[in-house]
Amino acid sequence: MSTITGDSLLQQLNWRYATKAFDPTKQIPSGEWAALEQALVLSASSFGLQPWKFIVVTNPELKAKLRAASWNQSQVEQCSHLVVFVAKQDMTVADIDRYLDRIAEVRGVSLESLAGYRGFMVGNLVEGPRHAEIADWAARQTYIAMGNLLTSAALLGLDTCPLEGLEPAKYDELLGLTGTGYGTVSACPVGYRSSEDKYATTPKVRFEAKDVVVHL
Amino acid sequence: MSTITGDSLLQQLNWRYATKAFDPTKQIPSGEWAALEQALVLSASSFGLQPWKFIVVTNPELKAKLRAASWNQSQVEQCSHLVVFVAKQDMTVADIDRYLDRIAEVRGVSLESLAGYRGFMVGNLVEGPRHAEIADWAARQTYIAMGNLLTSAALLGLDTCPLEGLEPAKYDELLGLTGTGYGTVSACPVGYRSSEDKYATTPKVRFEAKDVVVHL
Repeated sequence: MSTITGDSLLQQLNWRYATKAFDPTKQIPSGEWAALEQALVLSASSFGLQPWKFIVVTNPELKAKLRAASWNQSQVEQCSHLVVFVAKQDMTVADIDRYLDRIAEVRGVSLESLAGYRGFMVGNLVEGPRHAEIADWAARQTYIAMGNLLTSAALLGLDTCPLEGLEPAKYDELLGLTGTGYGTVSACPVGYRSSEDKYATTPKVRFEAKDVVVHL
Repeated sequence: MSTITGDSLLQQLNWRYATKAFDPTKQIPSGEWAALEQALVLSASSFGLQPWKFIVVTNPELKAKLRAASWNQSQVEQCSHLVVFVAKQDMTVADIDRYLDRIAEVRGVSLESLAGYRGFMVGNLVEGPRHAEIADWAARQTYIAMGNLLTSAALLGLDTCPLEGLEPAKYDELLGLTGTGYGTVSACPVGYRSSEDKYATTPKVRFEAKDVVVHL
């Protein structure tokens, strides 16, 4: 176990803010990026189905084009690594089976032993009422990964800026997603805050705990 | 700064799993819970609007009733603290103004200085195209908080089990939410794994990084 104290956790979550200006001269070292990327891969999702891809953009020309599709927000271009959260737009029996194949591989169990789990997932996501909103279900899962990324990065001392302000169709085109069954949901620049970002020292605004937390 | 290493982060994220059996005799100490609750309050959201409430249930009778509305999953009853994620179902000008009042209070700025920001939020969320899907927008934000909770808890050595498998209307009724403008989205039991939970030692299943991460 390698846990941290509540004070350390809160110190880093208070240090975190939606970074508006990144220092474009600072790149995340590859070893540190690898850890954050693996943290992202470990994100939780409904049934563990991981209905997503994470597109990591470091190419300067592509970042510049994506900035133009992101309300011209400079973070998209000036960050070290841009993570684009991409969700599956449908969930089929083949998708369930791909996941079951992976369970069988990792755990060394037979597909037969997973038949009940298969039926449960197919009944819920493919043939059940949730299928009518499956793209939204998948998109929601990517927000768990986003939340994990924001917190994990803060713990590593890396800055982030969650972004919904982008044009998904343009992102899809620029990232080659059109027609693949995956669609852009959101993005998150990761890197290092600029020393000139005035928001870094602006007090964080949250409602008082008594206004958002209810104890029953 | 109180950062951790990539190895420590990954160790805790690998330690984390969707806990199926909690030890009902173990309660989270109040100081530790207070830290996790504050971490939750610090969750990021679109525009910082926090369109949510976090309902923390420790009352045994209420947990038992909620279990019955959660496909009878024992985690709901046996955990130490059950967090229910509740989202706003609409976003009005009054909601925007409530947030702006809080910004003015925390940062000591005038409401006049926030007029541009106000117009931007109202144009996007109240009068813009996003308003047609505003309940879904708010629900998605709660998944950021869920992702933050899962990671924060893991860093503190606390077990969790994200749950979408519940009946929102029954939760709303049991939690007194009906008619309040807030609705149940998901839940997350928090506490300590039972020594008898076989899933604690079952290998975690994730697709290989090469199958979910794309570098551009």
